[in-house]
Amino acid sequence: MEVGICKQDVLQKKKNAVLVDGVILNGPIMDSKAGEKFVEEACKIIMEEVIQKANDVTEKVCEWRSPETLKKILDLEMRDTGESHQKLLQLCQDVIQYSVKTSHPRFFNQLYAGIDYYSLVARFITEALNPSVYTYEVSPVFLLVEETVIKKMIEFIGWEEGDGIFNPGGSVSNMYAMNLARYKFCPEIKEKGLSGLPRLVLFTSEECHYSMKKAASFLGIGTENVYFIKTDERGKMIPEELEKQVQRARKEGSAPFLVCATAGTTVLGAFDPLDEIADICEKHGLWLHVDASWGGSALISRKHCRLLHGIHRADSVAWNPHKMLLAGIQCCALLVKDNSGLLKKCYSAKAAYLFQQDKFYDVSYDTGDKSIQCSRRPDAFKFWLMWKALGTTGLEERVNRTLALARYLVEEIKKREGFQLLLEPEYANICFWYIPPSLRKMEDGPEFWQKLHEYRYIGMKECTLTSNV
Amino acid sequence: MEVGICKQDVLQKKKNAVLVDGVILNGPIMDSKAGEKFVEEACKIIMEEVIQKANDVTEKVCEWRSPETLKKILDLEMRDTGESHQKLLQLCQDVIQYSVKTSHPRFFNQLYAGIDYYSLVARFITEALNPSVYTYEVSPVFLLVEETVIKKMIEFIGWEEGDGIFNPGGSVSNMYAMNLARYKFCPEIKEKGLSGLPRLVLFTSEECHYSMKKAASFLGIGTENVYFIKTDERGKMIPEELEKQVQRARKEGSAPFLVCATAGTTVLGAFDPLDEIADICEKHGLWLHVDASWGGSALISRKHCRLLHGIHRADSVAWNPHKMLLAGIQCCALLVKDNSGLLKKCYSAKAAYLFQQDKFYDVSYDTGDKSIQCSRRPDAFKFWLMWKALGTTGLEERVNRTLALARYLVEEIKKREGFQLLLEPEYANICFWYIPPSLRKMEDGPEFWQKLHEYRYIGMKECTLTSNV
Repeated sequence: MEVGICKQDVLQKKKNAVLVDGVILNGPIMDSKAGEKFVEEACKIIMEEVIQKANDVTEKVCEWRSPETLKKILDLEMRDTGESHQKLLQLCQDVIQYSVKTSHPRFFNQLYAGIDYYSLVARFITEALNPSVYTYEVSPVFLLVEETVIKKMIEFIGWEEGDGIFNPGGSVSNMYAMNLARYKFCPEIKEKGLSGLPRLVLFTSEECHYSMKKAASFLGIGTENVYFIKTDERGKMIPEELEKQVQRARKEGSAPFLVCATAGTTVLGAFDPLDEIADICEKHGLWLHVDASWGGSALISRKHCRLLHGIHRADSVAWNPHKMLLAGIQCCALLVKDNSGLLKKCYSAKAAYLFQQDKFYDVSYDTGDKSIQCSRRPDAFKFWLMWKALGTTGLEERVNRTLALARYLVEEIKKREGFQLLLEPEYANICFWYIPPSLRKMEDGPEFWQKLHEYRYIGMKECTLTSNV
Repeated sequence: MEVGICKQDVLQKKKNAVLVDGVILNGPIMDSKAGEKFVEEACKIIMEEVIQKANDVTEKVCEWRSPETLKKILDLEMRDTGESHQKLLQLCQDVIQYSVKTSHPRFFNQLYAGIDYYSLVARFITEALNPSVYTYEVSPVFLLVEETVIKKMIEFIGWEEGDGIFNPGGSVSNMYAMNLARYKFCPEIKEKGLSGLPRLVLFTSEECHYSMKKAASFLGIGTENVYFIKTDERGKMIPEELEKQVQRARKEGSAPFLVCATAGTTVLGAFDPLDEIADICEKHGLWLHVDASWGGSALISRKHCRLLHGIHRADSVAWNPHKMLLAGIQCCALLVKDNSGLLKKCYSAKAAYLFQQDKFYDVSYDTGDKSIQCSRRPDAFKFWLMWKALGTTGLEERVNRTLALARYLVEEIKKREGFQLLLEPEYANICFWYIPPSLRKMEDGPEFWQKLHEYRYIGMKECTLTSNV
């Protein structure tokens, strides 16, 4: 009798059970078949509700609900007992429904949009493999891929050699660079700290990303020691103003050590004049960091790379392929011209349990000690697979197309009634006003601007293509 | 004739083409059907080669190759033109083949292993949605989920209220805490920096994670100003030694501001005596941070939470659900007892383009300005979906099972010839020696240890369950 055999089997198994602390160690821990089926069913939902709809302009970008309402709709509470697969799949549906579809053709938010199938596949692979990139033995492929990608990015910057590390964000890249410049300026700070030292001062434009202030505060430099340099009417740092501020800092007895230029500012999309800034850095012995988190992708385009003319003179560059190139959040590299091991010297803590020096392979591939992180995601991989799929030409077309679209929008704005262009753009940020019909005949003045301001969340008013609409 | 119609259609389309800067704007940009098919085929490979094999103990953990050989095998180069889908799928296969399968039953590396189907699905969803968590309007669901998860974690710590933020790693959590403690100690540092201030000093055990040194160096405090406190034979910080060091620092005229206790050290798995350390912190007015990146998961188990007795007295806690709980790399929370907005005050830069204060919803949900990052991944979501699926009871079983397995291993080590237990463990780290037969009769001494050391990469020698084998 089959049932009998089954029962006996169970009894036999129970006899051999290893019981420790009330846990049957050799019992089944999870129904892997059911787990795999759940993954398959969820993947079907993801394919239909996210990936396929990414091309359907008739779908909504987001089913928007206020925080209060959304809390009521979603079953957020985590309980003592688990939910059924059916309930969980419904939850996944809900999460997708009320989330913003950043791949939607009408998603215009912060500096990225759209879908790239190749980087997406790479991301699925790394989520399934769940690696951490610190030592070669545990991430062999991803470390070699990172090395290859960094080399290639360095080529596009125009350096003959260099070093680099992928990390979680342009803000963090900027912090890396700031700390590296400080280490170069005075290596003892690593051990001794800043106490008792003269005031360190860095320079950046008033249009720079807010991470400069965050970095200065986090690194113990202090936000007041970030000297903001005036920009011209297009948002570009004025080199003469930089020169003045460096001299002012010197006169004050403080210690200037770093200039952070921006290639592609967040709001206006302005590119600082790198070549002229590099001259000043050279003259005063200052580290030149270029925050090209947003503008770096233009380096891929032979037509537009002139925007970053002079970038090869930088000591470090932040560049986020997750923005215009669509590599997926987050894909951010800090690149460093130095190839003498400065990055490692600055960041190493030489943890003996992880970075043994007597391994059976070349431990220079254990790049984890260049990082401020311990666990680290293989973010270079998604960029690599995408690059393999599209080729440099395909990436170039992506940049050219985006900038041609921006050009087209500018011409449309100029033609259409009620639209006012703020300034002739040089990148993908188009800053314009929409003046609603009721205000078009009003005189320019405080009342006009107040009324226009109120329209912001009613219709569409001040916006850039890359900022909130 | 159909072909004729097709041609005409193409010509018609060409006529309406909008050509800007050499780019046809309204031409097709990507064959989305082919893209979707590529994703489907790649998902099949991922399911077969990673997810299903995660349960097959007869498969290899990794097809290991040296860096030189692997470079030759893999086609790493990124070229001008893209590759075919067929070639790309082969590349994906290769990447998987030569990568370490961290979900394999025999993967024993740094503090995580195994697969959780629910967190994996959550990760697939977020990769497809590609969100960034800074403002409610762009990440409504994920911000509410993060709030819910943080509240729940705070409950398990035993605080009545609190705040927190998910971030890329326990190392970064520790940095957050260090900066927060410094801000609390002297808020002016945010603007003024450390220059001219007395030497700030922090205390941590000599068995702490190496990120403490990295953090002290990065934050401008200096590694020499990390005072390492002696530990007992089990790797726990000795409170009397802490007291002595605090007094020494005071006598030196420096400014003690922070104690970083560890709940679950990296190598020995030791838990510092939090209650006694909290007494000292209270007495001296020092911030108490607990690095529970590894040990925090024990809080979920009613049987094992006593390991962290006194944690409710901490001012901040780092806890990584990506380790023992299997939420996937990276899932790390910094939790803070303060609920008066300290986190935001310390970290905010008030970027006007992102964090407008006059939005049409409650902007307290725009938590991005609590972060050192700008773009940020929705790491709380994978933990949330897993928790929904397993329930607190399921998570508790996971912890209990892991620790029962550790217990079992200890008993086996004690029984088996040639194995020597280093110390009776209190967590999942089992430190033992394997003495190869040829050395078992050798006398203890320098020669013995030298020979044993050489065996490390030949057989198996010094290892912990959670460190490199």
